[in-house]
Amino acid sequence: MVNLDERLSKADYARVFPGLEQDLGECQRAARKAGVPVVIVFEGWAAAGKGSVINRLAQTLDPRGFEVHSTLPPTKNERLHPWMWRFWNTLPAAGDFAMFDRSWYRRVLADRIHGKVGRAECEAAYRDIDEFEQQWIDAGTVIVKFWLHISKKEQRRRFKRLEKSAATAWKVGKTQWENHRRYDEWKTLVEEMLERTSTAAAPWTIVEATQGRFQRTKVFETVLRAVHAEIERRAAAPRVEPTPMRVSKPSPTDGPTILDRLDLSLSLDREEYEQELGKLHKRLFDLEHEIYTRRVPVAIVYEGVDAGGKGGNIKRLTRGLDPRGYKVVPVGPPNPVELAHHYLWRFWREAPKAGHIALFDRSWYGRVLVERVEGLCGETDWRRAYREINEFERQWSDFGTVLVKFWLHIDQDEQLRRFEARQETPYKQWKITDEDWRNRKKWPQYKAAVVEMLERTSTTYAPWTVLEANCKLYARVKAIRTVVRAIEEALAGR
Amino acid sequence: MVNLDERLSKADYARVFPGLEQDLGECQRAARKAGVPVVIVFEGWAAAGKGSVINRLAQTLDPRGFEVHSTLPPTKNERLHPWMWRFWNTLPAAGDFAMFDRSWYRRVLADRIHGKVGRAECEAAYRDIDEFEQQWIDAGTVIVKFWLHISKKEQRRRFKRLEKSAATAWKVGKTQWENHRRYDEWKTLVEEMLERTSTAAAPWTIVEATQGRFQRTKVFETVLRAVHAEIERRAAAPRVEPTPMRVSKPSPTDGPTILDRLDLSLSLDREEYEQELGKLHKRLFDLEHEIYTRRVPVAIVYEGVDAGGKGGNIKRLTRGLDPRGYKVVPVGPPNPVELAHHYLWRFWREAPKAGHIALFDRSWYGRVLVERVEGLCGETDWRRAYREINEFERQWSDFGTVLVKFWLHIDQDEQLRRFEARQETPYKQWKITDEDWRNRKKWPQYKAAVVEMLERTSTTYAPWTVLEANCKLYARVKAIRTVVRAIEEALAGR
Repeated sequence: MVNLDERLSKADYARVFPGLEQDLGECQRAARKAGVPVVIVFEGWAAAGKGSVINRLAQTLDPRGFEVHSTLPPTKNERLHPWMWRFWNTLPAAGDFAMFDRSWYRRVLADRIHGKVGRAECEAAYRDIDEFEQQWIDAGTVIVKFWLHISKKEQRRRFKRLEKSAATAWKVGKTQWENHRRYDEWKTLVEEMLERTSTAAAPWTIVEATQGRFQRTKVFETVLRAVHAEIERRAAAPRVEPTPMRVSKPSPTDGPTILDRLDLSLSLDREEYEQELGKLHKRLFDLEHEIYTRRVPVAIVYEGVDAGGKGGNIKRLTRGLDPRGYKVVPVGPPNPVELAHHYLWRFWREAPKAGHIALFDRSWYGRVLVERVEGLCGETDWRRAYREINEFERQWSDFGTVLVKFWLHIDQDEQLRRFEARQETPYKQWKITDEDWRNRKKWPQYKAAVVEMLERTSTTYAPWTVLEANCKLYARVKAIRTVVRAIEEALAGR
Repeated sequence: MVNLDERLSKADYARVFPGLEQDLGECQRAARKAGVPVVIVFEGWAAAGKGSVINRLAQTLDPRGFEVHSTLPPTKNERLHPWMWRFWNTLPAAGDFAMFDRSWYRRVLADRIHGKVGRAECEAAYRDIDEFEQQWIDAGTVIVKFWLHISKKEQRRRFKRLEKSAATAWKVGKTQWENHRRYDEWKTLVEEMLERTSTAAAPWTIVEATQGRFQRTKVFETVLRAVHAEIERRAAAPRVEPTPMRVSKPSPTDGPTILDRLDLSLSLDREEYEQELGKLHKRLFDLEHEIYTRRVPVAIVYEGVDAGGKGGNIKRLTRGLDPRGYKVVPVGPPNPVELAHHYLWRFWREAPKAGHIALFDRSWYGRVLVERVEGLCGETDWRRAYREINEFERQWSDFGTVLVKFWLHIDQDEQLRRFEARQETPYKQWKITDEDWRNRKKWPQYKAAVVEMLERTSTTYAPWTVLEANCKLYARVKAIRTVVRAIEEALAGR
């Protein structure tokens, strides 16, 4: 039950509030030190005072470390991306605060009541929100969510007051009054939303917002408690150093893996290759235009054994394409800014726009490959990543993105041949480093990680295609053919 | 004279081109190593083959290190910023390549012929472009600019060919044919543009684009030459280690500086302060709304002596504002990504959007203050910065941005008092570090740098206001009053 008459006397407020402000400053420094990102979401009735309580927080926090995001209806560019894209972009770095004046909940409230989102989309949105918050929380983010509550009568009173001043009258327009009339309809949706999205890790706090003093105090207290809880949780958690992957001795009951069953002798001669390539390029060129006009985004992921031929394969695929229609996203070790964010953050930012192709030269699968093998992240992290990646790709797929994922495979002998060739050819020497030789020694670990990755992340909406790449020509033709088919199927299914 | 019949035989091409591709790969690695950013601009007649030559470069370059930018008409969001803003955002980092399929030259060509830019704006654009390229070049950027040239007849032939295929017919619409009819008009503008913007450091290269082989070869050769020239220039340049600033002994002929003439005893008592503050806040609240509806951007810069009270001043200024209308941009030492860019890059990105207020807690003036005093950049760098900053602010001002710049000044005794108070108050201790004490020892250097900064960067469009800040209350009221007046004047002048 919400008691909208909650009040705090001037005297009590003066006794309590300055202390809270001071605590919040210290809390921010502690969060910075512990590397905790903090997300504070404000939803609530129009005129409930979101702006002023956010401003009060902004006044209290050190500006080197927070941002305020106002969530308006999506812009044209934002609509060309999966709907969660713009929120991923605003993800705070470790130690930073982000405050949202309205948020992703817009999609299950305003967009729904205004008929922009149907029942089915709304259900999908609930699931997306749940996964999204869970992913952020699993990465150690604190999410505090406030619903600022006032009665219909109080809202009316406030609208009238706002209308009296020239500086604020613009805030109350037809839409606001229309929403006001539909207060009870809204209330039903709000109740559903609160019920469905109040999780143990990110519960809603309903704030009785009739009085500013009370509201501010409750908000400050709630934020303080949530952030301290996470800092304490981290301090108490046993520190487990990630360790490089080990592989157990093979057991006689192990069957051959998908990689063992590949026919790496598959090949094409130069003539067949040129002929096939010519046909496929022509087709792909037409398709690039068609996905552009029909606004289909395409994401192509390249992973593979070192020296498997990713670079050359990408080059053949893009030859002849219009460079305005595609981008190659090379993925290396994360830079410091990327390291301070959720590992999927930098990939969300590179989501291909509707009508465009993005080719990822290595990808988010680094989490379950190099990071797992080398012990760059903890075991819980890479174990959780399979689910996270499937969710991530499903959101892109739901938006209509065609996902094609390649694993370029060669055997150890072929790799050795290529490494040696690189060392002997002056203009290829830069391509071979000590790290390549080190990685080669970990062949069994990588193989096991790849097999598990292929098994756990091949989905109906984002299947893996393994390219038998001992013969580069064969692998190139197969790659382009796979892309052509995937796009054709997607276009046919629309 | 342009000979549009330039041709390269198949045999010559086969002999030369593969070598160029290989050289470009090596050139990219050399540029990466030397930290040279490379900008390649493609302008030219429609259907002259911009797309395919860019694609060929993209094929040849390592994707870990280049981006292709297509310059379309500005989006709604881009139009809310100074026109050069979007190009600053695309600035490549040290060692990266950026290729532009059309560019900032759009403004003196297409926008002009289509009547979106008048004669006066076009003149301003020429100046902006000149300054912009010069600033990038001074920071060590290579800029290569190509005009791809074909005859009117050849263009017609190509349009007809494009129209024949479904995949390319969309490229030739009414606009293209209309432009084709006006080929000669365009030509006059193109000639003017080439003449006015061909500088020694960033000359135009006219590429006879009738034949693909010839065009590709010339483009590759030109890029290679330009990048190597810069790498050699850097290798040959004597390495001067930046040194911390020294101040010469004062001479008896030195007059008092602007800082010596300040009346730091200016003060307000608490009652006057509260009264003034109340009035000013009310006014500022109204103005925040007015600049929003009238789409006026406002940038407020805070610089000042350590412990001069910047933070508290900013807090009082923003108290009561709608947080959706302003942002505080705290400026610390640049992160690695920022360090790899032009020093103004990160400030351009934070340009306030039309209708919004941005408060900079420290700013681009770091270049001529801390970087100069501590020897973090070379002497030529900070000397050049006065002009660069004036140009930068003028571009914002031309767009209509109201610029207010504060220097908060206190004397050495007051600083000592505040430092000591911070050390004694537990919840303020985090505010005082060893660095503050070290900086304090450099008071004479900082003072000299500040005086020169105030003298050289106070302009009619972006004047400095010195705040006598020994009394914090006085400084706060003066700051808000200054902002209120500046906005009022700007609104009155529109």
